[in-house]
This record gives sequence, structure tokens and C-alpha cells, in this order.
Amino acid sequence: MVRHLMLPLLLLVALAARAADPLPSWREGPARTAILDFLDAVTDPAGADFVPARERVAVIDNDGTFWCERPEYVPTAFQVQLMASRAAAGVVSPDSMPYRAWLAGDRDALREYGYDEAYQALIRSFAGMSVEAFADSARAFLARQRHERFGVPPTELYYLPMLELHGLLAAHGFQVWVVTGGEQGFVRSYLEAVVGIPPERVIGSWTPPVYHEEQDGTVRMLRGDEQVYNGHEHKPANIQLRIGRRPIFAAGNSNNDQAMCRWSATGPQRSLSLWIRHDDDVREYAYDRGTDRIAALAAEHPRVVEVSMARDWARVFAREE
Amino acid sequence: MVRHLMLPLLLLVALAARAADPLPSWREGPARTAILDFLDAVTDPAGADFVPARERVAVIDNDGTFWCERPEYVPTAFQVQLMASRAAAGVVSPDSMPYRAWLAGDRDALREYGYDEAYQALIRSFAGMSVEAFADSARAFLARQRHERFGVPPTELYYLPMLELHGLLAAHGFQVWVVTGGEQGFVRSYLEAVVGIPPERVIGSWTPPVYHEEQDGTVRMLRGDEQVYNGHEHKPANIQLRIGRRPIFAAGNSNNDQAMCRWSATGPQRSLSLWIRHDDDVREYAYDRGTDRIAALAAEHPRVVEVSMARDWARVFAREE
Repeated sequence: MVRHLMLPLLLLVALAARAADPLPSWREGPARTAILDFLDAVTDPAGADFVPARERVAVIDNDGTFWCERPEYVPTAFQVQLMASRAAAGVVSPDSMPYRAWLAGDRDALREYGYDEAYQALIRSFAGMSVEAFADSARAFLARQRHERFGVPPTELYYLPMLELHGLLAAHGFQVWVVTGGEQGFVRSYLEAVVGIPPERVIGSWTPPVYHEEQDGTVRMLRGDEQVYNGHEHKPANIQLRIGRRPIFAAGNSNNDQAMCRWSATGPQRSLSLWIRHDDDVREYAYDRGTDRIAALAAEHPRVVEVSMARDWARVFAREE
Repeated sequence: MVRHLMLPLLLLVALAARAADPLPSWREGPARTAILDFLDAVTDPAGADFVPARERVAVIDNDGTFWCERPEYVPTAFQVQLMASRAAAGVVSPDSMPYRAWLAGDRDALREYGYDEAYQALIRSFAGMSVEAFADSARAFLARQRHERFGVPPTELYYLPMLELHGLLAAHGFQVWVVTGGEQGFVRSYLEAVVGIPPERVIGSWTPPVYHEEQDGTVRMLRGDEQVYNGHEHKPANIQLRIGRRPIFAAGNSNNDQAMCRWSATGPQRSLSLWIRHDDDVREYAYDRGTDRIAALAAEHPRVVEVSMARDWARVFAREE
């Protein structure tokens, strides 16, 4: 279902990649120039900044960097809907805390309860589900969900300039990973169909899977009951754990991505980090909460470049005309 | 250094791959036939067992499956040598337990102390090292280490038939991962140069890395102080965590690989698992401790095939003639 919805988007990007302009949705300016200069430099075998193909690792944050995260943070919206169906099936009680607060969207009550604790309780409501059933639920959610302002499924709100950039990185021999605080199983459920990034290249917050051998000797993988968080300094640490190389390209939009961008920017090889700045409330949203540290990094470090959505992007989504 | 040592080996395999026989070190027999039939079946787009390329995941255990693990388990030998240098530098006391027992190779004392506890203490002796310094130490160890019977560095004792099989899997569009109980940072330090498998495709027992920001704002990754074990049912669980797909090819040599092979063998797609059996004390070693459960799986399940080193392998190592 997701595949069908997204075909036009992928097609559009593929067509763009074949055109003379490799980044048609990026306006002329320092950000676009920094990207093209960086790609030229690290792929020129005769140049001083050449990086062998196998060391070209790119990491891109998901929510707010690759797709729209406003007004609703999509991974959590999915988790609350799934928990509601688990409550309906009697797995958890919808009247007990913190489930009552999740269902009512009562953020004050969640804060009072303790957000981290409340979040782990949400995760626990899926414990014992098979990883396949969880992914099926995620795809079904995405197919029926509509963005309150744009009226399309969330998967159609990947940013066109970032999709073009992903294609250009891949065309330059990069392996591109998504590194997100969002739930790994959720992002994996659709990302390959929507963006072309396979499950092994998704690093998100994860629940250690549980091996389960049935009576007949067959094996299923079930969801565990505790989430390991992939944000802030855990992002670079988990990149080291999972990839084993320091990325030479990173993109993020908030303080949550600052450590990842700093690690990339302070390595021995030439690198580029992008700070995607939400300053366009006409075509998307304008907000700067939780961006002071990544903004400071961009101001201080020449390898970390600010991308203004309003100034640097000729288009934001594939859907607009 | 490692690169140089292994070039003849990689070259040999590359030459073999171009020859008419794709598995020259495998003798005619049920194991070889099972491999070739499996590869034909899953790559034939017109066949009922076709598997799309992106879903062709192969996992291979390292110690005892891919390279020789006798008489000395190489990852531990390295760790003890590294700990000795840390003791010499004053990081841990060589006279205190369990370090004294590690240095003396006193297995009884380690058992009495508690092996798991003693192992974590060994790991803790590297806490705070940069991941790069750890990898450099590993490569230096491998370059100077000589196998007590064969007189060559451990990296020259990768099994030639398995290297050929790895090449053949890759040529059939498989992504090949090493899934090992050995320390991930150790295996990553040499595997790309020796076998051609990059660091992101190594899943081993790991120590969660620690993000460290220096005074000048640069970032280094340091080793943490506790090991997460990747053996038995943790292998398939970590494959789900890291790769996110059920493998359709698995190879192992002991009970430690049984769960991984069972998961692969009981999936919806056609699959093949190999149990590498050490029954050749002329060319390698003969031992069957800790193999009863994987042997039972091979006896019971048609998708799990026994490979007798004595019967099925025409050659064991590149070095013999």
C-alpha cells in the first residue's frame, strides 16, 4: 500500500537525478555549493580530500530532517494508536495510567507521571508481538493516516531536496543510513519502499528482540519490553557500534543531532554536516525550540552548514506545485 | 601489514571465482550439491523459490566456521595480550585476580573465580581506550602471532572452501555478514582487509562505545566497560536488531550457532544452513564438544546440512599443497 502511494515520488527523484541539474530543488547559495564542492572533493581520486568509496558513510536524521515532524511526531502517533488497539484487545487497561493519559493526549499528565516512564510503558504494551505483526500495523497506520494540514499520508511528506540529496550521495558511492530517535521497527517498516533505504541501514531507538522457539521447533522474533534510546550522544555511539566508521556526511535539525554532527565534523577526513533549519511557515513550519546547540555548532564550525528551508529550498515537498 | 599478508589468499579466491568450477575446494557430494542447488533456486526469477536480491542475507559464524579456532581461541588470546600491556602500563594490577589467572592461563582459577565475571574484568581493562587504538593493537597482535602448529598468522587460517563460498554468495547478490561471539572491535580490525567483509557487516559481542568530547570540541569514541554477549539465542536476536531480516543462509560449527541456523531454517523462504563439522585431525582438528544440538538440528531438518571437513573439503587452507 505504501509502495503504491510513493511510486510517483521516487519516480520524480529518479527523473531529477538524470537531469542536468543534480539538485533541482536546491536554490543557488552557500548550502548547495557546499554540498556539490564536498561531493566533488571526496570523490576525486587525484585530490587531497579523496575518500575511498567504502569509507563514504552518510547519516541522516529522520524526523524534521528527512520528513515533516509537525504538528504531530509520527512515530509516537503510531505507537499511541497501536497501544489503543492493544488496550481494546485487553493487553493493557485504557483506564490506568499512563495509558489513559496517552489516549487522551494529556501531555501535562504524562509529564507529571514522568515522561520516560510513561514512554517505556507505551513500549511495553507491544511486548510479545511478533516483529512482523508490528511492521504490518505500522504500514496500515501510515496508509490511513492523513496530515492535518496537507491532507496526505506522512510518507508523502519526505522533503524533496533531501530525497534528491540522498540520491546524489548514493550516486557518489555513499552508503546512506538513517539515524533516528524514532522507533527502529516503525521506520524500517516503510523506509525501503518509500525512500529506498533498506532495514539494515536504519538505526533507531530499539527494543532488543526476543528469540522464541515454538513447540514445533519453528522460530519467531518477538518484541521485547524495554526501549534503548537513540538520541543525542547515543547517536554517534550507536553509529560506531553498528557501522564502525565515523561518517563524513551528517544531516540533522535539532540539538538531538548535535553530537552526531560534531563527531562527523571533527574527524580526520573532509566532511560536511547540514543543519536543516525550519524557518518556513508558508510551505512547512517555523520553529527553533531545541536548536541552540546545533545552531552554535554551525556558527562555529566551517564543516557544519546551515540550510534554511525558506531560502535554500526551491521546493519542499513533491506534492506542491 | 595484515593487508600485505593476505593478498595471496584473496587473489587465489578471486582466480577461483573466475574459473569454471565455482567451488574448487569442495568435493562432489551432498553438501556441495545442496549449496549449488540452493543458489540456483533462490536466484532464478522464474522459479518458485526465488528471493529478491535485497532479501538475500547470509550470516557466517567466525571462530571454527570461517577460520581455525584451535588450539587457541584467537579473540581471547588477543585480549589477554592487550590486558598484559595495560597491566604493564599500570591500568590494572597483574597480581590481582582475575588478571593473575588470565596471565597464567590458569583456567581452573578462572572457573573458580567465575568465568563470566573474569571475562568482564578482562574487558574492563580496555575501558577508556579509543576504538582506533584498540583496532591498532589487534592488527599488531595478528601480524606477530603465529599458530603453534601451522606457523602462520591466524588470518592465514581462514578456510579456503568458506572463502570460496563467501565469494560465490556475494556473486549471487547476497549481503554476507559475520555473526560471532568474538569481540566485534577485534574482528572488524582485520576482516575487511583479509576477507573483504566491511565493519558494518560484523556483528560480534560488543562493548557499547562511549562518546567523548575533548576540551577543544573534537570528538573521540572510547571503549566502554561492559561486554554484551552475542552467542546462542542472542545471535538471531541481534541479527533481527542489526539487519532486520531473517537470513536465508547461515553457517556455524557449534551449539552456539544452533539458534541462528534454526531461525534461518524455519522461515517462509527457501534457505540453507551449514553445520561445519571438525572431523579432520590430519589437516586441521577433530573435536565435537558442544555440537550435540546443532548435530540434532542437522539430522532432523533437511534445510540444515552437515559439512564434513574430512569428506567435503578438497583443501582446508590456502597454505597447504
